[in-house]
Amino acid sequence: MAEAYAELERRFRRLGILRGAGAVLGWDRQTMMPVGGADDRTEQAAALALVDHETLTDASMGALLDSAEADEAGALEQWESANLRLMRRQWIHANAVEAGLVEALTRAAATAEMRWRTARAEDDFAGFAPLLAEVVALVREVAAATATALGCTPYEALLDSFEPHGRTADIDALFADLEAFLPGFLAQVIERQAGRPAPLPLDGPFPVAAQRDLGRRLMAVIGFDFDHGRLDVSDHPFTGGTPGDVRITTRYHDDDFAKSLMAVLHETGHALYERGLPAAWRYQPVGESASMSLHESQSLLLEMQACRGEAFIGFAAPLMRDAFGGDGPAWDAGNLHRLATRVAPGLIRVDADEVTYPAHILLRYRLEKALIAGDLAVDDLPGAWNDGMQALLGVTPPDDRLGCLQDIHWAEGLFGYFPTYTLGAMIAAQLFDAATAADPDIVPGIGRGDFAPLMRWLRAQVHELGASLTTAELVERATGRPLDVAVFKAHLETRYLA
Amino acid sequence: MAEAYAELERRFRRLGILRGAGAVLGWDRQTMMPVGGADDRTEQAAALALVDHETLTDASMGALLDSAEADEAGALEQWESANLRLMRRQWIHANAVEAGLVEALTRAAATAEMRWRTARAEDDFAGFAPLLAEVVALVREVAAATATALGCTPYEALLDSFEPHGRTADIDALFADLEAFLPGFLAQVIERQAGRPAPLPLDGPFPVAAQRDLGRRLMAVIGFDFDHGRLDVSDHPFTGGTPGDVRITTRYHDDDFAKSLMAVLHETGHALYERGLPAAWRYQPVGESASMSLHESQSLLLEMQACRGEAFIGFAAPLMRDAFGGDGPAWDAGNLHRLATRVAPGLIRVDADEVTYPAHILLRYRLEKALIAGDLAVDDLPGAWNDGMQALLGVTPPDDRLGCLQDIHWAEGLFGYFPTYTLGAMIAAQLFDAATAADPDIVPGIGRGDFAPLMRWLRAQVHELGASLTTAELVERATGRPLDVAVFKAHLETRYLA
Repeated sequence: MAEAYAELERRFRRLGILRGAGAVLGWDRQTMMPVGGADDRTEQAAALALVDHETLTDASMGALLDSAEADEAGALEQWESANLRLMRRQWIHANAVEAGLVEALTRAAATAEMRWRTARAEDDFAGFAPLLAEVVALVREVAAATATALGCTPYEALLDSFEPHGRTADIDALFADLEAFLPGFLAQVIERQAGRPAPLPLDGPFPVAAQRDLGRRLMAVIGFDFDHGRLDVSDHPFTGGTPGDVRITTRYHDDDFAKSLMAVLHETGHALYERGLPAAWRYQPVGESASMSLHESQSLLLEMQACRGEAFIGFAAPLMRDAFGGDGPAWDAGNLHRLATRVAPGLIRVDADEVTYPAHILLRYRLEKALIAGDLAVDDLPGAWNDGMQALLGVTPPDDRLGCLQDIHWAEGLFGYFPTYTLGAMIAAQLFDAATAADPDIVPGIGRGDFAPLMRWLRAQVHELGASLTTAELVERATGRPLDVAVFKAHLETRYLA
Repeated sequence: MAEAYAELERRFRRLGILRGAGAVLGWDRQTMMPVGGADDRTEQAAALALVDHETLTDASMGALLDSAEADEAGALEQWESANLRLMRRQWIHANAVEAGLVEALTRAAATAEMRWRTARAEDDFAGFAPLLAEVVALVREVAAATATALGCTPYEALLDSFEPHGRTADIDALFADLEAFLPGFLAQVIERQAGRPAPLPLDGPFPVAAQRDLGRRLMAVIGFDFDHGRLDVSDHPFTGGTPGDVRITTRYHDDDFAKSLMAVLHETGHALYERGLPAAWRYQPVGESASMSLHESQSLLLEMQACRGEAFIGFAAPLMRDAFGGDGPAWDAGNLHRLATRVAPGLIRVDADEVTYPAHILLRYRLEKALIAGDLAVDDLPGAWNDGMQALLGVTPPDDRLGCLQDIHWAEGLFGYFPTYTLGAMIAAQLFDAATAADPDIVPGIGRGDFAPLMRWLRAQVHELGASLTTAELVERATGRPLDVAVFKAHLETRYLA
């Protein structure tokens, strides 16, 4: 192994370890930290980010990369070469942007996020708009600088942080296909649902302790190892920590256990991916997830493909009845499945069902591209949002709280993140389709509470590959073809119209 | 302000912030982390330690210190000068020892600590001894190198990390005084106790939730701010986190609430000190605690001086009765006070009462000095330990589990730490004596559950001074005289013989 490459592995190993430390501190912030700890924690995150940035922009780093790349032919194994390419990618991102701009954006985003919290509560878009405009202006500077370095468009330069090598031409084509399909499909689903009796509601309350026990039990069934992870509570469910110590969260509502439980199953999908990443490459870029869309595919595969399917609901129904003393026809597996697959257009993305969720993403993707291109002014956002919601889902937000103020992402400076949710949904459908074709015991296994066949396939086809392939390469290797909206559409048709 | 000094503040600020990150991760390790997270966490701690060491040993750091010291006269305020001296001290410690030796000791200590856990459980000193000998050998190397740089003895070089400027001649004199006093005093106390009816025992069980609620209530009474801290559970009580987010722990036993509650009060003393450190100097060396003995004085002042006194027990007794439904003479304040001040020689340091605790420390201090001087071989430790226990407390451990295997400190490479416990007890007595003389409302305040008078004095005389003075200077400023065993002895005589 070439000397320069070995030194790079040593430096990126430390970066990976320190990022893991930051991830645990980030988890703590959302689960354990008292409110007064925020200042210290912000300083800690900033100091770790600075160490990271200084490591990547150290004068010797570029020379090491040059040297390792010059040595590469014959000297490096395939995974090492992939690792080296990922190192270079991180270096380009870090070096494209001056430290002063990064810091200005970090501060502007922190300020905007704080203001967003009150603005949302008070439906005060006008008060938030100048701060968001500042964030957008700085993000556009970052995008422009990074685009030059990467040789792509400014929006793609932002997308690249979440979806490496993502191209808007590809996403536009996939999303156009979906947009052509969804409104008609949704109308059919609504009509079909209307022609049947509504599912019976479940009567609560559902004690939090019982919800937690049920969630833990199902996590264990699926393969979550509590020696290497935790389940806790936070405002919004997320997966944090490190591959050796994966921490997922949910939020409990004592009048509705399904929402919380589905969040647990969703995050368990993220967690099993983290746990399954290649141990031999831990702390190296190539040992991480290939992209946010692939990460989301693992959570959505588990939640939407596996756990909202009839096989899993059939397995879980008696456990649910046991947990809450449920009885009668509302607790039949059939009714529980109808509840878990109920479709209704709504205003809030995080509450959306599987069918309408992509419409929320199509809207955000279109609007954020326009914001970054300079084709949409922040002040015009509420109108553009409301028009889009009406066109895509036939609903109009009565105020901005339920409209363009609902998400935290843009306030935090996250542009290019939203499309990965729906790309993930499509990848999930295509992977699950390939998995169940490759091993016909996967669905019956889920019906028995045996996730081993599914996990075996996912480990070999997804988890263990880390970032050694791009997302597109991995999807093609695992499913035999490029990402294809047809599989996602077929999944929706089978589940909601068959 | 001189330029070099400003740059030093910038660098030490980052060090301080990153050490805070490490402190939160250390807290998590002992309270939240699943067992399988240990490898990732160890890597995180090692990476942070390496960043710390590299910062302090960076070639430019010595030059900056030289330059700031050359500029110092007239250019720096008093606190800045103190800060600069503390920076130099950290630099000397970091640069005295080669990185390879530090790493070898870190690894040897990690291995020894792991082995210690099983050795203690299995009473297997022979299996542990070679690993402890390896740790001692490496610690002796560190001590020798640091002693040269500091101009002190090897043991004092180790002591210096916990007790800056600590000298064995001073400690020997204090401890000799105590050793001359204790055996006779203990005999008197035992005789006096024997001549009275034994305190009535409290009948449990004491539900953990009720214990926790009572602990939190008393913490709030004393002044703990739950917006800036937490109470959790760990194997051994400790105080962690950062001044903005102080986290204390205890351990609950459902047959004995007093032990757990006293641990909560003890750690609350540590926590209030951390919270009270000067905010203007946060993250700088001079903004930290002056020493471990001073830190321990704050926990012991609260636990031993304030909360085991009659005034506090009188205040807390009805709260205790409420918490556990206590009733009858056993729950009288008088009986509760007798329980809280019961003296009995025992084998285990962490279970020892206020009177016998110093004997456990005298023994460890003597033995660790001999180990570092090369006058005692690790293999001879059990015999020396048992002889010492017999001589000091009249008890002989039946095995090494209850003898020289009971503490984790030496396995972890911590030598020079033990004496700070008893120095802290003496400082606590002297500070409380001065405080109550300066403000006669302090004890009556405690009796009303009003800790404001005590805290006002402690903030002004201890907390807000950070490390701007040495411990010896601070004690003399606050109490009007150097540390004097007489005050501690008088406290014991008043409480246990009056």
